[in-house]
This record gives sequence, C-alpha cells and structure tokens, in this order.
Amino acid sequence: MSRKPTLAVVGATGAVGTVMLQILSQHADIWGEIRLVASPRSAGRKLAVRGEQVEVLALSEEVFDGVDVAMFDVPDEVAARWAPLAAAKGVVVVDNSAAFRMDPDVPLVVPEVNPHAARVRPRGIVANPNCTTLSMIVAVGALHAEFGLRELIVSSYQAVSGAGRDGVETLRRQLKLVAGSELGTSPGDVRRAVGDDTGPFPEPVALNVVPWAGTLRDDGWSSEEMKVRDESRKILGLPGLRVAATCVRVPVITTHSLTVHARFEDEVTVDRAREILATAPGVVLFDDPAAGEFPTPADVVGTDPTWVGRVRRALDDPTALELFVCGDNLRKGAALNTAQIAELVAKEFTAG
Amino acid sequence: MSRKPTLAVVGATGAVGTVMLQILSQHADIWGEIRLVASPRSAGRKLAVRGEQVEVLALSEEVFDGVDVAMFDVPDEVAARWAPLAAAKGVVVVDNSAAFRMDPDVPLVVPEVNPHAARVRPRGIVANPNCTTLSMIVAVGALHAEFGLRELIVSSYQAVSGAGRDGVETLRRQLKLVAGSELGTSPGDVRRAVGDDTGPFPEPVALNVVPWAGTLRDDGWSSEEMKVRDESRKILGLPGLRVAATCVRVPVITTHSLTVHARFEDEVTVDRAREILATAPGVVLFDDPAAGEFPTPADVVGTDPTWVGRVRRALDDPTALELFVCGDNLRKGAALNTAQIAELVAKEFTAG
Repeated sequence: MSRKPTLAVVGATGAVGTVMLQILSQHADIWGEIRLVASPRSAGRKLAVRGEQVEVLALSEEVFDGVDVAMFDVPDEVAARWAPLAAAKGVVVVDNSAAFRMDPDVPLVVPEVNPHAARVRPRGIVANPNCTTLSMIVAVGALHAEFGLRELIVSSYQAVSGAGRDGVETLRRQLKLVAGSELGTSPGDVRRAVGDDTGPFPEPVALNVVPWAGTLRDDGWSSEEMKVRDESRKILGLPGLRVAATCVRVPVITTHSLTVHARFEDEVTVDRAREILATAPGVVLFDDPAAGEFPTPADVVGTDPTWVGRVRRALDDPTALELFVCGDNLRKGAALNTAQIAELVAKEFTAG
Repeated sequence: MSRKPTLAVVGATGAVGTVMLQILSQHADIWGEIRLVASPRSAGRKLAVRGEQVEVLALSEEVFDGVDVAMFDVPDEVAARWAPLAAAKGVVVVDNSAAFRMDPDVPLVVPEVNPHAARVRPRGIVANPNCTTLSMIVAVGALHAEFGLRELIVSSYQAVSGAGRDGVETLRRQLKLVAGSELGTSPGDVRRAVGDDTGPFPEPVALNVVPWAGTLRDDGWSSEEMKVRDESRKILGLPGLRVAATCVRVPVITTHSLTVHARFEDEVTVDRAREILATAPGVVLFDDPAAGEFPTPADVVGTDPTWVGRVRRALDDPTALELFVCGDNLRKGAALNTAQIAELVAKEFTAG
C-alpha cells in the first residue's frame, strides 16, 4: 500500500505537543491527514500545523478510526489506558510516556542508535525514551558502537520544561519575585519569598538547584534516575550496563545538560572520540574551550542535535571519557524523537 | 607565651572578606587586635567587626608589624607576592588563594580532615583549599576515614559568588533582563538579551548553566577541575587517588552543590555511611526524600556545615556511594575554613 499515512497527535496542546506541531510543519510532509487530539477541555480549539488551522478533537476511540500512526504525548495513566485501545484498532502508537518503556514487548527506540528495534512491536506500540536519557544517548551510543560501553556515571542539569508548562510558568513566576532582590544570601530567604508557589517542584527552583525529579523508588533512588539506568540499558542492548545517575533540576527553561563519565572496554583516545562525535548523525561536536566553545542550554535550545563538548579522557583511567552534553528536552528529548520514530514507521506504509 | 594573638585580615572588603568579618564577630573572641587590610583604594573605609568600626589599612609591609596570624583573601598574584613578605616577618599566613596550595612546603588544611597538617609549615604559610573542593571534602573525608577511598567522580553546580562580587552582580543584572520575558526558548535569545554583559563568565549565566570555571589547562581540563583533583589528593593524603571532576556554573548566588560518586576499597552499606555522616563534625545529614528532605542551596546558604543528602549505594557497584552535597562557598568554602585554620594556629599562641 503506497499512500500517505494518516497521523494522530494525541496531547497536541501540551508543552511537547506544541513543539511537535512545529516539527511536523518543518519536516518533509510525509503525512496524509493529521488529526489533533487532546482532552475534552481543549476540544474545539484550532492549532496551526503545516500552515493550516486544524480543530482539536476530544480523545475518544472514534478519533482513531482510519488512523495509521498515533503519537502520544500525554501523562502515563492516559497513555496506559488509551494506547492499547488505539493499537487494538490497528494504529501504530508511538508513545512518549513512561507507561510502556520497560515492557519487553514494546521496543524503546532512538532512530540514530537502534532503528531496527522499531520494526518489532508485538503490542503495536513503540516507546519513546525519557527526555533525560534522550539528551545524552545519541552521543553515548555513537561512542559505544566503537569502544564498547561498560559503565555510565551521569549527573543531570534538567530544565524546568521537563515538568511541562507548569514547570516553565513556575520558574517564570519565581524569577519575577527574585529579580531585583538581594535574595539568595541567607538560609531560607528564597523559600520565604516563593512561599508555597513551587509548582511541580519540591523546592524553589529560581536561584536554586533541586536534586530531585520524579517519584521515590527503592533505596532512595528517584524514578527519573531509574529511568536513565533502565532505558540506557534497553536502548543500547546492554542489560548488565553499570549506570549511576543523579538527576538535578536547574533554573533553565528548556534544554537538559548532563555530565557523562563513560567507561569503555579498553583504552580510548580523545582524538578518536572526537572523530566519532564529529561524524555521528544527530550529534554536534562543539568543543574548543580555548575559543570559548562548549555547549550551553542558551545556545542549544530550539535545535535538533545532541551537542557535545568538554571531551576529555579521565586523567586516572585511560578507559574513561568525560563529556558535557546538551539536548533540547522538548525536541530530541521528546517531540523530535517521537516524530523520527513515527517517520520510520511511516516508511512501512509508503514503501508500498 | 599566653596572650591573645594579633590578627590581620587581608582582603577585608571582598566577598569572602565580608563573610570573614561576620564570622569573626560570631566566633569565640580569641583574638587581640584585629587589623583590616585591603588595596589602597579601599583604605580609610570603616568596617564593622566584633561590634566595632575598624578602619581599613592599605596593604604594605608595615601593616604586618606585630601581627601573629594573617588571613589572606586576595587574588593569586597578590598572595604570591605578599604572603612570603608577611611570613618573613614571622607572621603565620593562612592563604585562601591558589598560589601555594600545591607547594610541598605548604600544608593544605581542612580542620575536620587533616588538622595535624597545620602544625608543619616550613614556609610559614598554611593554604586554604579551593571552594569547590571544600564544599564536599569534609563529608568525603569522613567516609574515607572508615571505608578507604579509591575514586571520586564529581560534578559541580557552582554558585556565582565563587567568582566574587562581580559574579553576583552579573547574575543580578542578567536576572532583571530575563525576568518577565519569554527568553530561554530559542537559540541565542538569552545571549542576545545579555549582550556582552557576561561579567567574569564566558557565557550568560541567567537561565543557563556554563560548563567552565577557571582557565584552560592541559588536555581540555579547566583549572577548577584540576584543583578538585590535586587538592583532594593532598588533603586526604592519597597521591594516587583517581579523581574526575566536571565543574559547571549555575545561576545560584551562594552555595556550591556537587554530585559525588565515591568508590571505596570494599563493599559499603548505606546504613553505615549514614551513621558516619550523621556524626561527623561539620556535616549535617539531611536525607529523607519521602519527607522532601535533601539539601538545596536555598536552605544551606549562610550556614556553616557541609550538608549531605541523596545517600545511595550504586546499584551496580557495591563499593560505591552516591551523594548530593551542598556547602556555602563563602563560609566553609572560603572564610570559615580559613578562620578555623587561623583558630587552630592561634591555639599555639594561647596554649602558653
């Protein structure tokens, strides 16, 4: 069947959905109809995609009639309920929630790293990784392909938009309170100024960093940290990979950064690592500290690739590399990777 | 000789000097005369210490006449010139610059970790560690004393006051520009708003994180990262310790945070690690994520101890612990540790 497939975007009005509509308007137009879907309270709104105003439909089983591929950017519990219903109608679901990522019958796909995995989907669902994992895995995957990864020790500097629109609005409100003040110099002064207005975060995020993201899992780990470990292992096909992550929220609007200590099977060289990163699809090597070149969120936000800088070999371990990576958590970290997976799947329809 | 020793505070008007005067006013009054010293352009100003207004003297050889102990909080090049001149007059210099830290004839002291080292000072100088090292070394030292440290992999979240008053004022100015805006969502928008006003930082620091602190050393490492490695080794007396640090500036006024992956000689338990941290002098264990307890700069700023939270054992390495530590970079990270060293030295005068 060679025809343009029909796409549904479920969660079209959220922070990730908004970026998704931009991406669909920018990428090659491979889709037939694009149907926008959201919760009933957003139904009837019109949103721009591919230069046209499209009315948002309320989520129901009927909206999936005739749909070939559906991209879901909705909370876990919504995805858990609706993705199987759509899949039961023959829709290929590309889901950006955590609901199915660790399901052994659901592939977890990063097109630059494991594109083949998207073809085998017993439940009709393909999962999109967590934004923190996605912000570094393309670079790490390229190095793994040549050097063989043994261990990852990562620390994140996560933007507030990873917690959705509420995260962004919370930081914007708090910034207005602290800008022009002398706050940040005595214990609790920022907290008192912010009061209970911490939004989706457990502590004030303006003039602060918060070492917590997600919910509490066993032994003091956060769900976000467990995702980085479990998802990295699944994407790379390394079930025994040693991973230790600490996830920290920082007062940045969009673009996650991570420090990465990556240990490989044998000795590595910075020169070869730089060659790999300079030519890897989806990666930009931006690494010349003498010229002031290293990635920061302010430069990377709004762009597609994973930016890598500060490439060094560990001074005391010739098998380990240090990296600083930045990736737009709403683009590659969410909407872009979802769109790339959907485009991979769409080829099955258009290949005829 | 049992008498109250005379103290000189060199660099009394700087960001660290200001905190030093607060600390001298709060601690037990062990000093006789306290002489305040700064550059000639600050001479004649009066500053409050121990409830009295004291006139600032211009730095000269004569200001050290009759001084027993001098605390230096001045740039490296000023310390390199003036500390030996003061020492030649018999003054014990406690220096917070990087000028002497790695000199084998200058002890590098953290009173909770290696107090004995302060007694042997062939050059008459005791060095105070860098603020980033100091923000974690008390906690790490306590664990090392029992478990035996093998490797440290750390990432920093460094406050702007680590770059002095100029750093603080730069972030304050940038926050006024970005608060109330929609900046931080497209490439370079923050940079364009900030223009050239990046102060002591290579990139905008508001709504951003900047993976650079200090100057460029060999193989892409920053001087700040090398200090963490070299100073940790020297303080802990472990010249072969494996250390990998990545230093990143964040938009926080004061208090450095670090993620620490610490690998020890043998298997460790979280229960024992927590006991050690809960009882170690100078450390506060604040670690109950279920109750929302983990340290953040907003809570820690203005306090003396090293705060430790997020204590976990690495899931894939029973010899490694993960920590999140916060320390006020102007207090324990600079002025407080300097004062503590000076107080150790002062006991030699008052012990009689």
